Formats: sequence, structure tokens, C-alpha cells
Amino acid sequence: MFENRQKRTELADLGEFKLINRLTKNIRLRQKSTLLGVGDDAAILNFEQNKVLLSTDLLVEGIHFDLSYMPLKHLGYKAVMVNLSDIAAMNAKPTQITVGLAVSNRFSVEALEELYAGIQLACEKYDVDLVGGDTSSSTSGLILSISVLGAAEENKIVKRSTAKAGDLIVVSGDLGAAYAGLLLLEREKELFKKDPTLQPDLDGYEYVLERQLRPEARVDMVDRFAEMDLIPSSMIDISDGLASEVLHLCEESGLGCSIYEDKIPIDPQTVDVAELFNIHPITCALNGGEDYELLFTVSLPDFEKINGKGEFYIIGHMSEEVSARNLISNTGEAIPLTAQGWDGFKKD
Amino acid sequence: MFENRQKRTELADLGEFKLINRLTKNIRLRQKSTLLGVGDDAAILNFEQNKVLLSTDLLVEGIHFDLSYMPLKHLGYKAVMVNLSDIAAMNAKPTQITVGLAVSNRFSVEALEELYAGIQLACEKYDVDLVGGDTSSSTSGLILSISVLGAAEENKIVKRSTAKAGDLIVVSGDLGAAYAGLLLLEREKELFKKDPTLQPDLDGYEYVLERQLRPEARVDMVDRFAEMDLIPSSMIDISDGLASEVLHLCEESGLGCSIYEDKIPIDPQTVDVAELFNIHPITCALNGGEDYELLFTVSLPDFEKINGKGEFYIIGHMSEEVSARNLISNTGEAIPLTAQGWDGFKKD
Repeated sequence: MFENRQKRTELADLGEFKLINRLTKNIRLRQKSTLLGVGDDAAILNFEQNKVLLSTDLLVEGIHFDLSYMPLKHLGYKAVMVNLSDIAAMNAKPTQITVGLAVSNRFSVEALEELYAGIQLACEKYDVDLVGGDTSSSTSGLILSISVLGAAEENKIVKRSTAKAGDLIVVSGDLGAAYAGLLLLEREKELFKKDPTLQPDLDGYEYVLERQLRPEARVDMVDRFAEMDLIPSSMIDISDGLASEVLHLCEESGLGCSIYEDKIPIDPQTVDVAELFNIHPITCALNGGEDYELLFTVSLPDFEKINGKGEFYIIGHMSEEVSARNLISNTGEAIPLTAQGWDGFKKD
Repeated sequence: MFENRQKRTELADLGEFKLINRLTKNIRLRQKSTLLGVGDDAAILNFEQNKVLLSTDLLVEGIHFDLSYMPLKHLGYKAVMVNLSDIAAMNAKPTQITVGLAVSNRFSVEALEELYAGIQLACEKYDVDLVGGDTSSSTSGLILSISVLGAAEENKIVKRSTAKAGDLIVVSGDLGAAYAGLLLLEREKELFKKDPTLQPDLDGYEYVLERQLRPEARVDMVDRFAEMDLIPSSMIDISDGLASEVLHLCEESGLGCSIYEDKIPIDPQTVDVAELFNIHPITCALNGGEDYELLFTVSLPDFEKINGKGEFYIIGHMSEEVSARNLISNTGEAIPLTAQGWDGFKKD
């Protein structure tokens, strides 16, 4: 419903090579680590003394996104963010991406240009080079596969497995908003299906909608940590919901944890939406996913570096007892954390 | 028809994280450039003074492969080859891959294990580390997205754009066989559809079938070139057919070329199959694709390095005249080359 309807050029009229040329013709390279970008069998990169980070993510239509409310430009932007977030979660700066794109002929060349406009906007904003990719037809729908490279000095890289008992658990921003946005968009879609004359009623929910449709990767935190002379003791990005990510840090570090319900930052708009849908707001934060905030641990000696800084939220601590990975509720009850994060293979 | 039917575990019963654990549990790392593989937000790699090559390829069910005659293990192996070939085409050694996998629930866990067995076999044979990936459900079919990294000293890297007029055009092996294999498999599929009791009649065609179902990337050529102290003046791998790839070298290098029909190496089995299907064998070589041989150019002073070596086939030369990119037929006629290589977006 957001596609550019002005002109429609069929993919079949252009062919693969011309399509790639058209989609990549505006690319400007900005990373000095990029020696050669799109146009050969492979890109050529120069990382000198830096270590290289590599991650890859798939976004599948009907599973990860719904084009009835996700504009293609936003989808392109978000697909890049999902990947940049993985590099930020290693305390590294993203440098290059490749884009694999499988599309059915239901999409026009102009629609793919919209998608690429979002991808390129993200690249410009985050100083990342688009250096390669592959484009194919698909028998149904749209699948985006993005790989990302990043660079960092080895002693700055932060893994999931290096938290210690007693470390504080910290998040970089409020949680659950992206899921609240999704709930609203899904509701509007259902209403629109029943009555296509209805206008969407989304006023006052701009923040949660933006968190769903146009998330930002917290690459800024990599610079912020450097300014603060802070290296987190472990880190992960929140893509599948807080519970799932906390459990990953515990599992990889061989530890337990306590996180406190009343410490988990939730935006008032998220609370409003949760109430509208009869969901406990903490459920949005724990299981919602797609917030792309960073979840990290800080050793006690580093506590002073983050203490009193409004931008960080200390939500709990790691502990020795591997079998105790709990949410401490407002009434003081210890509730075992379970990963109910998004799972594309679930039956329901 | 080749799936392991012994046991069927549903994807939904396992969930994403357990599936990834199960598919990646046998991975052993062998590259010293891999500091950290699967299991964190990103892999950590160390290329020291080497330059880094990066490429990505998609394989889409119904477009690039047909599971009715492509066993899943072979598909996994071939998907890796397609990518390794891109790195070899830069005169570099592949070092790491990531695997993105979107699958519908028509596939069982055991089927995906078969696919991964092929991927891992390829990794073992070529000393490449599988260091990351993403697995998702899809609304239909199977899509494989593989990204590959490689490493090389900067002065050894060979691009498409650096051929010079007068350079010899060389291929590393016979062409058209993979397409001949595809023709046979497609025929068997049609016959099987009409009469499922028919047994496949593929005796005597082992070579062309293997070229289609189990191609090898010519990574060995990177070592061979080093032994011979030869750096090609330009290079590309043959994935879309000889005509298309020769035109790429011409286009990127701003040159023309002549290639000679009688110099193009074609295996006798390919000739047999072409005759069976009433196709000129040269058409298989020019437009068939998927041979994954290397096409490269050699400067005249380097001619002695390849002269008389049976493993190389000199098929023509580059020339100044940009508008003359011709196949010289056996009768001496100059026929303009056209790229009729595989194009997934074509209507027919």
C-alpha cells in the first residue's frame, strides 16, 4: 500500500544484470577499508591491524515482515539495522554490507528501487558501504539476506561469554515498544481487511510505531563506550526479547542472574498499548523483541562509569547459581525466565 | 526423492535455537584467521596483513535448483562451490562462509541435516570455516544465501577490469557439461512425471551429471598459478556461460575480443548429449553456465608459462576494438557474442 505507483517496470523487461546496475548505480563508497565495491566477483577490503566481525541475517516476507504495513523503504532500512545491531553488539563499528535479494515478479523495478533507497539511506547514515550482493527471482514473496562486516581492535571486542558473577546487567534504552507497534499495525490490518474504507487510527502512538517500522541500531553506543572508557564485560543485542537475550548471556557465560521487574525501562506509550491489548507491559519487554537496544554487563569496578547516567538502565546482576535465572517481580517473587522470544518455526 | 526417510523430526518441534545448535554442532574450525565462529552476535576474524575478499550468492528453489533431482547433500555442497568459485576468481583462497537458510515446514530436521552435511563436506575439503548464519522459516520452498570471505596478498588479487589488448584468453577446463547434465535431468524428470514406474536411464553420462550435481570450484588454480609464478591479467569464474563471462571481461576492461569455436574445450559426453537434444555443442559452452571453471587472460610475455600445459585451453585473445567481441566460427565467420546466459527474471 506504500509502493510507488507512478510507473511500473517489470523485472523481466530489465533482466538480472541491468537490474543490479540500476539498483547499485548510486552507491558511493565512504569506508577507507573498501578497496573495491560492487562489480567484480568479490569486493576487496583492507582491515589492516583491525579484527574483522562478520554476521548475517535473513528477513523473510510473511515471517519477519508484512508489506501491507511495512513500506519497502522502511524495510530496506530496518534490514540493514538488524545487521548493524549485531556488529554493535560486539562493540565494533560496521563497515560493509552485502545484500542478497530474492523477489517474485509481483514486484516492479520501481518497488525494488524503493527498497534499495532504504538500504542506501541506512548505509549513508551509518557510514557503511554496500559492496556486493546477488539478486534472484523467487517463486513467492521477498527475501532479504544481508551480511555485514565490521572492524575493531581486538581488545575492544565484547563477546556474550565473558560476563562474571556480580556484574551489573544494563540496557541502553526502553524495551517492548517495537512489539507494541507491531500489535497496533496488526490490529489496523485486520480492521482494514474487514472494512477497506476505514482510515488507520494511529494518532498518539508515533513512538511505538517508529520503534517497529524504523528502528535504529545502537552503533552510537560503540563511540559512547569509548568516550566513557568502558568496555562491557559481555554484550548482546535485543532482537528476540529481553528474556531470551539475558538467557543467552547466562548460558554463554555459565552464570545465573536476577533481573528486576521494576527496573526494566518501558515507555508510557508501550504501557498504553499493552493495556489496550490486555497484555502486561513487562511481557512486551521480555518477549516482544525487535527493540535493537544493547544488553550488556558491567563489572562492579566500572559501576561509577555508568552510575547516574540517564541513558543507561541497570536492571539486575549476574550470579554464580547457574540454575537461578530469574525475574524478580514487584512483589519480590522470583520467576524463572523463559525464552518465549520470536520463533519463526513455532506452530502457533 | 533423495531425502532421508528414516526419521522425520518437525522443525516446529525443535525451534530455531535448537535447530541451529543441531546443525552446527559438528563444526570444527580449521582456519587460523577464525578467532571465533558460530555462537555470538558475529564471528571474529583476523586477516593480519592480507586483504579480504567478500562475495555473496543466493540459491532459490525452483529457480536455481530442483529438489526432485538434486539431493540435498549435493545442493549444500554446490551452494558452497558457487561461492568459493567467486573467491578463486579473484585469485584468492576462501577462508570463511556464513549460511542463511530459509525453509518451509515441508522440510524435516533430518533433511536440513543432509543439506548441512553437504555444506560441511565442502568446508572440510576446501579448508573453509562455517562461522555464522541465520535460519528462518519461509512461506514456500528453500532459499540458501551464502556469503564467503577470502584472503590474499594485495598484489596477487586479480580483477575483471585489468585485461590488456593482445592478452590471451584462457579457460581452466571443458565447458557446457553442467548444462548437458541439466538437460538430461530435466528430461528424466518429465519422463518420470508421465510414468513414475520408469527407472532413470543415465548410464554413460556420469561426467556431465557430476558436473551439474557436484561441481568443484577451481580453488586449486590459485595454488597452481602461484607454483607457475603466473598472475592472470584479469579473471572471472564461469557461472553464467562463456559468452556472458567473456563479455564481462571485455566490458570491465574496455576491450574487444575474438574467441575461436574450434579452441573451446568440450567433453565428448557433452557433445553426445547436445546431439541427443539437437543442440549445437558450442551453445552449451557459450550459454549453458554452471561450469565453475575459471576464465582468465594472460599477457603475451607470460605465454610461455602456460604453453603446452594440457590443463589450460587458450581460446582467443583480447583486442583494442571495443565494438568487436566475436566468436570466430569454424568457417572463419565472425559472430558477435551475446550474453544469453541464465537469467532468473526472464519470462520464458
